[in-house]
Amino acid sequence: MQDSRISDAVVHRLPKYYRYLSELEIAGIERVSSSRMSVDMNLNASQIRRDLNCFGGFGQQGYGYQVNRLKQEIMKILGIGSSYKAVIVGAGNIGQALLKYRHFNDEGYHIIAVFDADPSVIGRRVGTINIREMSELPQFMKENKVDIGIISVPKQYAQQTADDLVSMGVRGIWNFAPVDVEARKGISVENVHLSDSLYILSYHMRENNESY
Amino acid sequence: MQDSRISDAVVHRLPKYYRYLSELEIAGIERVSSSRMSVDMNLNASQIRRDLNCFGGFGQQGYGYQVNRLKQEIMKILGIGSSYKAVIVGAGNIGQALLKYRHFNDEGYHIIAVFDADPSVIGRRVGTINIREMSELPQFMKENKVDIGIISVPKQYAQQTADDLVSMGVRGIWNFAPVDVEARKGISVENVHLSDSLYILSYHMRENNESY
Repeated sequence: MQDSRISDAVVHRLPKYYRYLSELEIAGIERVSSSRMSVDMNLNASQIRRDLNCFGGFGQQGYGYQVNRLKQEIMKILGIGSSYKAVIVGAGNIGQALLKYRHFNDEGYHIIAVFDADPSVIGRRVGTINIREMSELPQFMKENKVDIGIISVPKQYAQQTADDLVSMGVRGIWNFAPVDVEARKGISVENVHLSDSLYILSYHMRENNESY
Repeated sequence: MQDSRISDAVVHRLPKYYRYLSELEIAGIERVSSSRMSVDMNLNASQIRRDLNCFGGFGQQGYGYQVNRLKQEIMKILGIGSSYKAVIVGAGNIGQALLKYRHFNDEGYHIIAVFDADPSVIGRRVGTINIREMSELPQFMKENKVDIGIISVPKQYAQQTADDLVSMGVRGIWNFAPVDVEARKGISVENVHLSDSLYILSYHMRENNESY
């Protein structure tokens, strides 16, 4: 099918297009040209046209792209707005921050439960959800069709947690533990490393420092 | 100088090399070949050799790379282990999570203060730091040489906060508000969008779903 020909580099730019188009929509802008996008997004205009052509973009010469239609198309490709059920394992700082960030819910990523091994936090209410005891996880996973497992446990438990979640039926792992976890073919994994962008930042600070 | 010829794509892979080499070091491994790295890191071996050659890597035919030496070189390029002072503006969930994550401190990124506009949190202790009132920010910035401003305020305040921090002397902005902020030439900015990796995850879940 068409989507599967989209290169990884393009896929990684799609969230940026999505955020940009969402901002335009909020501002009431209905059409946008690739040259305007180029300036606003700091990307090459011909690259933008190539990217959007990959999935049959809707640009017309001298007319531009329809903001809403293009946004909807990108959402469909990324799976935004489909309904996903997610659980968080690890109710530490990152786990709680994710739980409280309601925007995910608005976009169809529903966090329906959070689990932790620390008895002192079990039962505590975070937003609209009570933190559950880890031992309840298997039963919960049997009773609920959970699509995504979000991992925010200490790094030494991350891979085991991922293995457990996969064996309990999740199709995707979103991992915030500071170690890469792996899963068998057919299971999607995104490892998030917050520090990486800090390292990139200090790299650029050094570079800037040397050229000024 | 040599570093400035490193392409953006290579720079973005350096944190991954750094994390990998750190793990090897912890495991007591002193040398590693590009083919072993290739398997472990799921990257092409010739790409690894090209990447590491960019900054004069230390591989020897049939001998491999010296783990510690290569790691030190990458740290130097990324600026890890140099000493940076940082402040956080916005003591919400993300701000507090960053504050509590001591690993940054160990790597030389010292968060020395956190500010918030909400009177109900002022004075509250997070880890070893008390949350300060926003009005104290200008005076604090005069008294301390702060390198990095970390932004975790609601998105409508993000750009103004960035502008303020830059005018008060920071050379780098690490932004977690869900909107891109910009700064004048010479100031480094990294905008972090947690949701982006969730979108990529659901993209791959859709793809996997369709091919199984």
